[in-house]
Amino acid sequence: MLHDKLAELGLKLPDAPKTVAAYLPAVRTGNLVIVSGQLPLKDGNLIAVGPVPDVTSLDAASEAAGQCVLNALAALGTLIDHDYSRLVRVVRLGVFVASSEAFSEQHLVANGASELMMKLLGEAGRHARTAVGVPCLPLNTSVEMEAMFEVR
Amino acid sequence: MLHDKLAELGLKLPDAPKTVAAYLPAVRTGNLVIVSGQLPLKDGNLIAVGPVPDVTSLDAASEAAGQCVLNALAALGTLIDHDYSRLVRVVRLGVFVASSEAFSEQHLVANGASELMMKLLGEAGRHARTAVGVPCLPLNTSVEMEAMFEVR
Amino acid sequence: MLHDKLAELGLKLPDAPKTVAAYLPAVRTGNLVIVSGQLPLKDGNLIAVGPVPDVTSLDAASEAAGQCVLNALAALGTLIDHDYSRLVRVVRLGVFVASSEAFSEQHLVANGASELMMKLLGEAGRHARTAVGVPCLPLNTSVEMEAMFEVR
Repeated sequence: MLHDKLAELGLKLPDAPKTVAAYLPAVRTGNLVIVSGQLPLKDGNLIAVGPVPDVTSLDAASEAAGQCVLNALAALGTLIDHDYSRLVRVVRLGVFVASSEAFSEQHLVANGASELMMKLLGEAGRHARTAVGVPCLPLNTSVEMEAMFEVR
Repeated sequence: MLHDKLAELGLKLPDAPKTVAAYLPAVRTGNLVIVSGQLPLKDGNLIAVGPVPDVTSLDAASEAAGQCVLNALAALGTLIDHDYSRLVRVVRLGVFVASSEAFSEQHLVANGASELMMKLLGEAGRHARTAVGVPCLPLNTSVEMEAMFEVR
Repeated sequence: MLHDKLAELGLKLPDAPKTVAAYLPAVRTGNLVIVSGQLPLKDGNLIAVGPVPDVTSLDAASEAAGQCVLNALAALGTLIDHDYSRLVRVVRLGVFVASSEAFSEQHLVANGASELMMKLLGEAGRHARTAVGVPCLPLNTSVEMEAMFEVR
């Protein structure tokens, strides 16, 4: 189903993020998979850098949050043999938004992630979520998203 | 017991937060319940906005953290039929405090949440905790709190 | 093995952090242990305060992240009778770096934690990770790290 929905939306999962030095893209413990903070990398490039909304618009940041979702699903895939029928549900998303002074719409940026999860996974895509502002992020990305999944 | 303690303190749980578009107030996976980042909403209004301590005092922010606790317990309730005898313990609180420049007492703000959990739940209310400063939060709230509970 | 590796690196675990008022250094739920946000305390003093890199250098902050690892392992120890053969793996590290304006190398600070976990624990030390920038932290620490472990 995930791949049908991706095709319908004209999207595809990237290759799984490479294993970085001393940490992993995702770890499984029991039926939980914890995915590392994902940046909005697409074909090797960050699609949104700098604080929102002064440097990156709210719309662009929201789209970047969607890219983090694709990357998180790709990272998850490595631990379930890319068989997404083993995904029971998205449990939690944590969204960090690089924010210009007094920006207070981090939830709208995070909706770009939440809504894509719903479109791709339906009921299984509904999750708990925390969205907060931060002053700056690794590699100057505008948004970073971590995730927790339940798998079988 | 929770309801006795609430009455004793002159508090009551709010209605559970409404389901928001693409994410849920809380999700259960196994015996864990993950509660979304809660804002200090009371009767539909934020009781603390702006950075601490320049706009909102430390005391007001600490009280607001307590309101987040009530909202988190209400969100939890929806997943355990409001039967709090099924709550085994609070596992973790994550507290984000909108902070004025160089503010370094986020732990004191978070104590407003931790101490209320203890008062309401006794030993079952003791938890692991992370408290950090952020520049700004959704809707300009002064504090946001996420939670993890163990239930039976 | 942990104690051999510690000795090899000239390190030792501190005493477990004291129980603080209303929250605990670590909580176990099922086979998971959640460790509270750890500060780089060594012999009772913070070894890195203020934002990175303007006040604390990247190298000093990275070393401080390693101290957080030692403190997190000490906190974990209290829940497994200090028998680290019961540690199955590190599941997740969350690293918060107090950041000077536009600092974008939080991941390099966090590597100080990740690499020490690997040195101490080998494969069991590899984890998922989230690293973000924040403007300020409790007690003006430069870095704070929370952790999730799987135990048996």
